[in-house]
Amino acid sequence: MMLPAPSASPGDPVAPVVLALAVMLVGAKLGGDLAERLGQPAVLGELVAGVVLGNLDLIGVPWFRAAATDHTLNVLARLGVVVLLFEVGLESTVGDMLKVGGRSLLVAVLGVVTPWALGWGVGALLLPRRSAYVHAFLGATLTATSVGITARVLRDLGRAQSPEARIILGAAVIDDVLGLVILAVVGGAITATDAGTGLSYAAVALILLKALLFLGGALALGVVLSPRLFALAARLRGRGLLLTTALVFCFVLAYLASVVGLAAIVGAYAAGLVLEDSHYGRLARDGERRLDELIRPIGILLVPVFFVLMGMRVELRSFAHPETVGLALLLTVAAVAGKQACALGGLGGSARLDRLSIGLGMIPRGEVGLIFANLGLSLTLHGERIVDAAAFTSVVIMVVLTTLITPPALKWSLGRREQRTGDAACADKVEHQRIKVAQLEEYLR
Amino acid sequence: MMLPAPSASPGDPVAPVVLALAVMLVGAKLGGDLAERLGQPAVLGELVAGVVLGNLDLIGVPWFRAAATDHTLNVLARLGVVVLLFEVGLESTVGDMLKVGGRSLLVAVLGVVTPWALGWGVGALLLPRRSAYVHAFLGATLTATSVGITARVLRDLGRAQSPEARIILGAAVIDDVLGLVILAVVGGAITATDAGTGLSYAAVALILLKALLFLGGALALGVVLSPRLFALAARLRGRGLLLTTALVFCFVLAYLASVVGLAAIVGAYAAGLVLEDSHYGRLARDGERRLDELIRPIGILLVPVFFVLMGMRVELRSFAHPETVGLALLLTVAAVAGKQACALGGLGGSARLDRLSIGLGMIPRGEVGLIFANLGLSLTLHGERIVDAAAFTSVVIMVVLTTLITPPALKWSLGRREQRTGDAACADKVEHQRIKVAQLEEYLR
Repeated sequence: MMLPAPSASPGDPVAPVVLALAVMLVGAKLGGDLAERLGQPAVLGELVAGVVLGNLDLIGVPWFRAAATDHTLNVLARLGVVVLLFEVGLESTVGDMLKVGGRSLLVAVLGVVTPWALGWGVGALLLPRRSAYVHAFLGATLTATSVGITARVLRDLGRAQSPEARIILGAAVIDDVLGLVILAVVGGAITATDAGTGLSYAAVALILLKALLFLGGALALGVVLSPRLFALAARLRGRGLLLTTALVFCFVLAYLASVVGLAAIVGAYAAGLVLEDSHYGRLARDGERRLDELIRPIGILLVPVFFVLMGMRVELRSFAHPETVGLALLLTVAAVAGKQACALGGLGGSARLDRLSIGLGMIPRGEVGLIFANLGLSLTLHGERIVDAAAFTSVVIMVVLTTLITPPALKWSLGRREQRTGDAACADKVEHQRIKVAQLEEYLR
Repeated sequence: MMLPAPSASPGDPVAPVVLALAVMLVGAKLGGDLAERLGQPAVLGELVAGVVLGNLDLIGVPWFRAAATDHTLNVLARLGVVVLLFEVGLESTVGDMLKVGGRSLLVAVLGVVTPWALGWGVGALLLPRRSAYVHAFLGATLTATSVGITARVLRDLGRAQSPEARIILGAAVIDDVLGLVILAVVGGAITATDAGTGLSYAAVALILLKALLFLGGALALGVVLSPRLFALAARLRGRGLLLTTALVFCFVLAYLASVVGLAAIVGAYAAGLVLEDSHYGRLARDGERRLDELIRPIGILLVPVFFVLMGMRVELRSFAHPETVGLALLLTVAAVAGKQACALGGLGGSARLDRLSIGLGMIPRGEVGLIFANLGLSLTLHGERIVDAAAFTSVVIMVVLTTLITPPALKWSLGRREQRTGDAACADKVEHQRIKVAQLEEYLR
């Protein structure tokens, strides 16, 4: 539609969004270029570009600080990470995941219990006058891994199909279930104690049951139903049916995941795991294109939006309060150290399993921690807020630091491993040069 | 990020959006399939699917009526039509447009003046007690063509590169400029009359100047600057640089268009016209993919969202008031008949120019008409509203009807032409069968 934006009308609502997208994409590519030149994954550059854009308000440009909390950009960014996890899921099968399932469960449990205990200890140490519930709650904010960053780093480095990647991604899915349960237990215990009633174990069990039913149902039924879905779609006339059917499948599972209380991206990842080339039948190719090739451009547009926006949400201002930063740093140490217990989950596996990378890959924390902290702001026990403003800011800083630490740490540990095993060493660099050579040949022709 | 949506938290904001997208995509494909089986362009089926979804509130399902006005879905839909016009623009060059420029200008002027006069007459006929300003304003709502529908139909039929298509698209761009000027003149005249002051011709001239400067600047400077932009981007490390650079170019021009008061999609179309394969230099191919192939999947996701959402905005309820429907039908007749004057703009051209299709392609009205009407709701003259609620609804119905009429009318007129000239007849059907054969061969292999 032709929508002019005369000064008398509210203007085209897409205009500020396309401007923000253009600036964020330019920032992402410049940041990614710089990061790659420094030997870091592109995603670190995208995060830092976001930090720079978001904090331009410090030099009098508040536009991006406002954009950082814009609802529509937020949804576009989340759509980006849904697409990213779907893409990563497409690279593995349900069978691949079941092979590492037991190990992922062990990694997830170790990686939830240890940081919870360490965070509890940090709370007891720095906030001795607060109740044990406060300490338990603070520990709980450290439990759930935010797998977007790790998934992206693994893909940047071409390692999304390694056993370590599958263990990490599987453990992150289980983390999400455990996070739900902990939130229900701790939140429920505080509310019950404050009201003087007992904790409802039935309510907690129901939450767990719903999440497990979703995961089991999505993976088991999905494998059976998805070939039929594509066979039905193949009967339709029209264009883009392969991509559309796959996206609908992904979106429906993402929605169902959120209905049972899981992250939407857990559903998107499950959808990616379920879909296999053999399911697509007559739709297997759209013209010359495979599904992964068709999805890639959507990711090129939306995925950087997520990482730049995450960076934009970092308020450098909040680093100015020493006591808050003290708690934040100790929480970060607990968060990082706690997840290294995950490496124990890799013990007894193949000698070639990169246990350090598993521990490092579990480091990033994200919105589960922020949601916990946010909930803590609204919970009270005997009239005292469970999480006060300073503790909340500390959790935010912990989320930022774990997010920024992971890309270089994981790149280093995977590189170290590659040098040692030697087999996949410098595959990334070779690929980079291969593309350049192909481009030059094309140019000279 | 792992974002669970426990009942205590506000939930993942992407969840309702992915659900809406999934339902809209399914509706689009089912509607498109049905339309194609009935020999109509897929876009008509998408519109009708939207009408069905949006009016489910009549049988007690209000969710889609609410979704129809959701800000985020609105932005995604508009992003879809930005991508669509960019894609259509990519299929032509600035040189192609200049060749038909004079003819487009003639078509645009005829197609603005005639419906304006006819609409004015309809107003004078049915609303004899209202002032001439009201009649002029009502006529003005009929002037601007909404080119999204036509662009889509032309593309569905593989005719986006025909001279008729270029004339229509060029005329629609000029329409948009003329619409701006008319809005400024009529709105300004009413405000000035009501306040007892004179109309500011300088302000009107400034609006026109800005729009012309943008179009001239985008096309002239764009052709010079875009190869340099791609040369700079080619120096960066990272992936997806061809697509990202092209999208940034499109988004920036779309934003600048809205800044000067034009529709964002006018900027996107101009960006598509400017970019040529020869500009991309070393970025000309990303792996094996050309730019148009890289953009297509983004369109597959977002373009149907626009057309389904447009359909969802139709409230069948408003067809229940006879006097409103009477005004609406006469306005629609004026709108359709008025644009047939455009066919005169095709006179004197090549004998093969399909003048009827040019007139039919200019029929769809869209949000410019709605914006005019909306502005009329807020303008008063001697305490009387320029556009009252009944007149507003009539304009909405006119927009809906012109939108629904165009796809079958254009399909028919282009088909008639193809049968007569015989050269491109059944190209679409052959292509459809070719894809099926390729899929079957792939399947049997």
